[in-house]
Amino acid sequence: MTTTLIRGGTVVSATGSSLADVLVDGETIRAVLAPGSELLGVDLARSVDRVIDATGKYVIPGGIDAHTHMELPFGGTAASDTFETGTRAAAWGGTTTIIDFAVQTYGQRIEDGLAAWHEKAAGQCAIDYGFHQIVGDVNEASLTALRGLADEGISSYKLFMAYPGVFYSDDAQILKAMQVAADTGLMTMMHAENGPAIDVLVQQLLAQGKSDPYFHGVARAWQMEEEATHRAIMLANLTGAPLYVVHVSAKQAVAQLAAARDAGQNVFGETCPQYLYLSLEEQLGARSDEWGDFEGAKWVCSTPLRSKHEHHQDELWSALRTNDIQMVSTDHCPFCMKDQKELGRGDFSKIPNGIGSVEHRMDLLYQGVVDGHISLERWVEITATTPARMFGLYGKKGVIQPGADADIVVYDPAGHTSIGVEQTHHMNMDYSAWEGFEIDGHVDTVLSRGRVVVDDRQYLGRAGDGSFVKRGLSQYLL
Amino acid sequence: MTTTLIRGGTVVSATGSSLADVLVDGETIRAVLAPGSELLGVDLARSVDRVIDATGKYVIPGGIDAHTHMELPFGGTAASDTFETGTRAAAWGGTTTIIDFAVQTYGQRIEDGLAAWHEKAAGQCAIDYGFHQIVGDVNEASLTALRGLADEGISSYKLFMAYPGVFYSDDAQILKAMQVAADTGLMTMMHAENGPAIDVLVQQLLAQGKSDPYFHGVARAWQMEEEATHRAIMLANLTGAPLYVVHVSAKQAVAQLAAARDAGQNVFGETCPQYLYLSLEEQLGARSDEWGDFEGAKWVCSTPLRSKHEHHQDELWSALRTNDIQMVSTDHCPFCMKDQKELGRGDFSKIPNGIGSVEHRMDLLYQGVVDGHISLERWVEITATTPARMFGLYGKKGVIQPGADADIVVYDPAGHTSIGVEQTHHMNMDYSAWEGFEIDGHVDTVLSRGRVVVDDRQYLGRAGDGSFVKRGLSQYLL
Amino acid sequence: MTTTLIRGGTVVSATGSSLADVLVDGETIRAVLAPGSELLGVDLARSVDRVIDATGKYVIPGGIDAHTHMELPFGGTAASDTFETGTRAAAWGGTTTIIDFAVQTYGQRIEDGLAAWHEKAAGQCAIDYGFHQIVGDVNEASLTALRGLADEGISSYKLFMAYPGVFYSDDAQILKAMQVAADTGLMTMMHAENGPAIDVLVQQLLAQGKSDPYFHGVARAWQMEEEATHRAIMLANLTGAPLYVVHVSAKQAVAQLAAARDAGQNVFGETCPQYLYLSLEEQLGARSDEWGDFEGAKWVCSTPLRSKHEHHQDELWSALRTNDIQMVSTDHCPFCMKDQKELGRGDFSKIPNGIGSVEHRMDLLYQGVVDGHISLERWVEITATTPARMFGLYGKKGVIQPGADADIVVYDPAGHTSIGVEQTHHMNMDYSAWEGFEIDGHVDTVLSRGRVVVDDRQYLGRAGDGSFVKRGLSQYLL
Amino acid sequence: MTTTLIRGGTVVSATGSSLADVLVDGETIRAVLAPGSELLGVDLARSVDRVIDATGKYVIPGGIDAHTHMELPFGGTAASDTFETGTRAAAWGGTTTIIDFAVQTYGQRIEDGLAAWHEKAAGQCAIDYGFHQIVGDVNEASLTALRGLADEGISSYKLFMAYPGVFYSDDAQILKAMQVAADTGLMTMMHAENGPAIDVLVQQLLAQGKSDPYFHGVARAWQMEEEATHRAIMLANLTGAPLYVVHVSAKQAVAQLAAARDAGQNVFGETCPQYLYLSLEEQLGARSDEWGDFEGAKWVCSTPLRSKHEHHQDELWSALRTNDIQMVSTDHCPFCMKDQKELGRGDFSKIPNGIGSVEHRMDLLYQGVVDGHISLERWVEITATTPARMFGLYGKKGVIQPGADADIVVYDPAGHTSIGVEQTHHMNMDYSAWEGFEIDGHVDTVLSRGRVVVDDRQYLGRAGDGSFVKRGLSQYLL
Repeated sequence: MTTTLIRGGTVVSATGSSLADVLVDGETIRAVLAPGSELLGVDLARSVDRVIDATGKYVIPGGIDAHTHMELPFGGTAASDTFETGTRAAAWGGTTTIIDFAVQTYGQRIEDGLAAWHEKAAGQCAIDYGFHQIVGDVNEASLTALRGLADEGISSYKLFMAYPGVFYSDDAQILKAMQVAADTGLMTMMHAENGPAIDVLVQQLLAQGKSDPYFHGVARAWQMEEEATHRAIMLANLTGAPLYVVHVSAKQAVAQLAAARDAGQNVFGETCPQYLYLSLEEQLGARSDEWGDFEGAKWVCSTPLRSKHEHHQDELWSALRTNDIQMVSTDHCPFCMKDQKELGRGDFSKIPNGIGSVEHRMDLLYQGVVDGHISLERWVEITATTPARMFGLYGKKGVIQPGADADIVVYDPAGHTSIGVEQTHHMNMDYSAWEGFEIDGHVDTVLSRGRVVVDDRQYLGRAGDGSFVKRGLSQYLL
Repeated sequence: MTTTLIRGGTVVSATGSSLADVLVDGETIRAVLAPGSELLGVDLARSVDRVIDATGKYVIPGGIDAHTHMELPFGGTAASDTFETGTRAAAWGGTTTIIDFAVQTYGQRIEDGLAAWHEKAAGQCAIDYGFHQIVGDVNEASLTALRGLADEGISSYKLFMAYPGVFYSDDAQILKAMQVAADTGLMTMMHAENGPAIDVLVQQLLAQGKSDPYFHGVARAWQMEEEATHRAIMLANLTGAPLYVVHVSAKQAVAQLAAARDAGQNVFGETCPQYLYLSLEEQLGARSDEWGDFEGAKWVCSTPLRSKHEHHQDELWSALRTNDIQMVSTDHCPFCMKDQKELGRGDFSKIPNGIGSVEHRMDLLYQGVVDGHISLERWVEITATTPARMFGLYGKKGVIQPGADADIVVYDPAGHTSIGVEQTHHMNMDYSAWEGFEIDGHVDTVLSRGRVVVDDRQYLGRAGDGSFVKRGLSQYLL
Repeated sequence: MTTTLIRGGTVVSATGSSLADVLVDGETIRAVLAPGSELLGVDLARSVDRVIDATGKYVIPGGIDAHTHMELPFGGTAASDTFETGTRAAAWGGTTTIIDFAVQTYGQRIEDGLAAWHEKAAGQCAIDYGFHQIVGDVNEASLTALRGLADEGISSYKLFMAYPGVFYSDDAQILKAMQVAADTGLMTMMHAENGPAIDVLVQQLLAQGKSDPYFHGVARAWQMEEEATHRAIMLANLTGAPLYVVHVSAKQAVAQLAAARDAGQNVFGETCPQYLYLSLEEQLGARSDEWGDFEGAKWVCSTPLRSKHEHHQDELWSALRTNDIQMVSTDHCPFCMKDQKELGRGDFSKIPNGIGSVEHRMDLLYQGVVDGHISLERWVEITATTPARMFGLYGKKGVIQPGADADIVVYDPAGHTSIGVEQTHHMNMDYSAWEGFEIDGHVDTVLSRGRVVVDDRQYLGRAGDGSFVKRGLSQYLL
Repeated sequence: MTTTLIRGGTVVSATGSSLADVLVDGETIRAVLAPGSELLGVDLARSVDRVIDATGKYVIPGGIDAHTHMELPFGGTAASDTFETGTRAAAWGGTTTIIDFAVQTYGQRIEDGLAAWHEKAAGQCAIDYGFHQIVGDVNEASLTALRGLADEGISSYKLFMAYPGVFYSDDAQILKAMQVAADTGLMTMMHAENGPAIDVLVQQLLAQGKSDPYFHGVARAWQMEEEATHRAIMLANLTGAPLYVVHVSAKQAVAQLAAARDAGQNVFGETCPQYLYLSLEEQLGARSDEWGDFEGAKWVCSTPLRSKHEHHQDELWSALRTNDIQMVSTDHCPFCMKDQKELGRGDFSKIPNGIGSVEHRMDLLYQGVVDGHISLERWVEITATTPARMFGLYGKKGVIQPGADADIVVYDPAGHTSIGVEQTHHMNMDYSAWEGFEIDGHVDTVLSRGRVVVDDRQYLGRAGDGSFVKRGLSQYLL
């Protein structure tokens, strides 16, 4: 097996940084060592097959994006990144594991949904991947299947309080699923928006001729996120199930999570880069020569971007600092403007929901370090360590320690990254939601299980490098 | 320099555990390695001077007790542990660093107070030690001296809202000191009890003939802790100074801390083992054949033990889980019953305040793991990693990583520790506040900067092993 | 028209008490006068037709019970009090107005439901009555009908978040109805319990053989009330509709109401005597020789009685004092044990839900004055003045002032009332939920629109005395 | 005795309005009657000495301003209104009772302070007046004197957490006084600002050359009001004393009051017109040709005007609606610019603190009705009824009911009032803090104990009309 020494860098963990060298043996980390080439008489650099010089750079655990939707069928089309293109883009951006969502649709068996997703992903991925299970039809068979999921390495499942008629579960269904989760230790992931009420608002806005993308954000009012978040918390409280609320965007929802945690409940929340940087007014209300009023469709996602006048971004950054929000995923769900987002011209409710960010999460959050929003350690914690702990990958992933998978990123704080569809973008999208963003840092080298897949602005991996990883139960519970 | 391999154990960090070996070279950790004796052709076990077998045991960073008072003059006597006896007891209990308090008394210069404490400790300590600075007289000279403290390796100072006429600072003084702290980055540690109001209650109780130790707890009502905690938070809010509230015992004070953190303020709290396990009724109200109604004097400390009927203990454990309380120190301040606590017979206000626990903190908190209150990782975090980060020692202390001081404890979860003055107790006290406590674990081996100071129930170190450590600014700020 | 002088009493209003005489002219109050028989040369006592001596007694506005269900069809039977028997019992107890609920059932037109209830009540009532409108089927026709309700004198309507398949509205329906309410000023009354989730728990408990009445209270967990209360508040927040939550029993629901009011929202809550005095353990878990384990059926109502160990009663009394709960109604919905409650033997879910209290509300709340829970003025406020203001009757009802209907009660604080089915009970029930309660006060004389209907322990009225009262919009909005 | 009939108006109470006539007999209200001249055969209008036509107007209880400082010595000068000029201005504005503050200065006996104030006021006042007692020196003699205050008709006393060296009480003193208050039922009024900390900020700002009036508001930061409010609440909680916080201006202080009330504590708050309408930026930062940067001195008062960017005004109006703030007083403490405010040129700390508003409170709050901030009933409640109840005057004052003092205002909603020093102003001030305010209403007629003192824009009373009123204990306690 190949041995590699990553030398001279600053290894950053969730709790601190240190100058240290990392010795990789095959697919795993063999040792972390104080700098200095000689160890008990051995010249390490000479003894290994390859030396990577990380002097002046950060050596961090590869990013874990715990919320992606490759090839997701949605709104009559499908997310434009395949597992191949999406995971390759992830690798480019310093993410070495994704956790995607296998989908059980209404009327289908969970087992069949999971099998279908295994089929889509197998042999395609550039990096390791796991699955959460979307449960779109809570019934007796589903509940039984849920009990077997952990054995399949699927330790988390997702319900939707939105999208009636598609993924929606009512409160009776949520309660039943959470009871199974409390028994089995599965993490309940929740899309927390009051879908039935939102759909009323959607229809009313459309009936008033308010069909631009902007009204997507109006219809999905913060009250509807706050309400569903609270409801999910109470159902979790009743059952004792741990709860993880996905894509939190409203500060009022953050307050609900914080209150529940202060009371000692196992409740967690994730936000996404778009909620930290983008706003209802600036993005959903945008106009362009090319797309006119429909420009905002580029940023139609749910939960929606929030009003900049209400200071949600500040509160989300603050919550990231105080651990009222535990981690950041992308909710990567890319659709091209052409032929996809276009489906919603004249009717915002038909715009496929989603933004593509899997490639940029590590960079965008690193910019949060540069801007003083979070510390360097917190960057590693919210992008890798906590995702690993939250979803049962820690030890293998999310940390640079002996025995762990050698999923390692060498990040250059003196580098620079310009984001844009023309320049840096490897996702299968015809636009970038992040066009023009400039990042004061750069992903230099990416190792996935010991293999260098990105280096010196070259992609060196190939489809199939990545394997399915079975996950254990959450290691983050209070 | 001596090399040591700690082999076969489970290394526990603040985020997780892994089977790993630790290679110590002289005073520092050279490497952390995946298990397996051979590394790049070297047989590690044969190459080192000493091998410690940690199979089946936890290998953890040595405990950091950030709140001790060796030899503290108080109430006409002095804490019964010298730096020699107190640090030796700490070592026995798996604590390898203490941060004690240098005292500036009223009318004295800070520089002189600090110098005096350096003199007391130099050459006496079994383990490394640092100092916080008590500021008992905030005046222009003190404020100037505060500005120079960080250069002395003293990155935190403590004020008292209690003890008028002794250590007390009024709000004007607190404000001025916090302004300096906001400028310099010093951590403000606060004894948060409304001393002037408490002293009224004390005098009234004594006048009513209520002189037993129990009334110490009655006088120091939770409202007085909650109030002072809130006041400290607001003064910190106004100045922008980070705040660390010591020995939090009331659940209402916890709620104040949680609310401030939810609002994004840099506010932290410490609790102590006594508040997690002991109560007003059971301890302060105790009677014995030997001491009669005065038995409770053994547990007279400030803040006081709280009523078990008000569920403070549950809330403190919960806050430890959710990080509303960040760490646990002892507030070790031992006094013997004979000649010391006895001074307060017939007048609880004359009982020297303090409990001795420096030897038992690691054990008592480990019992919290056994009892299901906290996770194994959280144990390490609240006893070592966060204390190091909070007070500027991380990297050198508080973590097992290459380059760090080899302050390491091998802890046996299959061992057992019986606490009692006759049996295990190495503190210089004629009683134990923890008499009869049984711990399902045991400190087997303790390394202090690479030197084995405790092993196989023998103390192998000596006075002067420990050095003063300069501390940097807090590494924990949001 | 008959003139009456009520002389020598203490007139109690929502803000205070004064010695004053009340002159009634026909159906209305003509004047309130300082004591003393002569006015501008007229000897009042000699000039009137009748003098009622109220010396030493309280003269208060007749009670308004804003939540009753006479003859309500429920669970295959119907509430045992007709409008005749129920309003007569109300009169006996010092209540001179009820607001009952006209019911639109699923598939029915609101207009037809309302007409049916008018038919039931017309010519039957001993006292004046109004209607709220239950909307059991929110659809386009219902929404149109809602817009016309205020013109019918129906200024409030009620939705149910419980009872799926019976009265239940989903969130889309609630939102639509609230939008109409925000437009029209109608008060939305909400039965706030998460019915779909509760029904899961009910079925699970029954499947486990837990069929006793006690499990009715277990199934309807506080989390389900708190959750629905919060949800209703958020839907109201979104639409701007004023909200009134009926029969609040959980302290956590009170906290939600308080928080919304602190934030300035028009949110109100009612509790009922049973939640102030009775508990899950003592009532729902009761056994008797006559009924065995089924004894608890007497107190099966929804929301349920709460656990005494959780201190809900204390919090409800406190909330009544601080106006976090604004008023007290009975939710009078009586069923006999024989043939009615019995339907649920062996299956608590089939026990008709309801307690009969319309006769005892004024007495039970007066006991709260005697016990020190509330002030005398607050008693009048929460039983008469606020109900009048909340539901658009003030001026005509709820206050002793010139021009108001002469609905007046002379209450003797030196009297005594023993409650029990054998003794004092005029409701059409074969048991009393309040058996054995002793009240330190007594309803001596009751005037309904100037007519003495109860006096000296005799009923002097007759069916048809009472008229339907059209109500205006709420006069209580912030 | 003279009899008067106020006819045709709308009598407004705290709970509602009704068309009613009011019959006054001598100094008291004899009857409130339904409109219509004939009563039991008597023609009322013909039988009385005087008829006041109130058709189309509001008939309200005379205003009670519970916070004035006539002739207060402060900062080397004295408030410019004497009891004569100040009470006359009050009468002009529809206020028929003031409660002023007798002052015990440091080193003085309470009895002597009270006697001195009796002497100042006796025979001077246009309207009735009472006293609160300022306790500026809490010592054993003061505590004894406090116990006797209620017998003197002084049922409330005031402490200051601000103004060290002048009125300041430390927490020990506050605690002792509150213990007496809890025993005796006295209401503790609190000036809640952290004076010692504020004084540090003041000195620092002045040392930086920031001497303009604007910096008065900067120094008295909201944190210092919030903190002191919380501290007062906790001391009250500990002792069981009811608490009334004067001149609340910061929304964060409101939140503290609301939280304490939600928890059931007897805590109340008053705000003043200046905090509802004026702001730090617009007033304290004002410049003028006449006064330059010193213009802002006109609005220097403590607590200070708050920043308009922080939305304190909105929160105060909201709190008035939800009863988190119970009433509005003026804190009338007028100083002329010439020779008085001028003392603080070049040093804002020497500007006498205070604004004159006693004449305008009823008008300014009525404008809140016109603007939709509060209801008509709430206007009466917060300006008259609650002040009466809060401070033990209800029954005699604060309500239009038989037996009450005939303190009555006929207010014309079709009238208009222009406020300004040239036009309407009867206070002894050389400027108006309210210059240019236009009010959509007018005080037409004012009766003080049955005597018409203002009518048709003429003052008909004279010094000495008003008497000292002994007050009972608060009638507002929960």
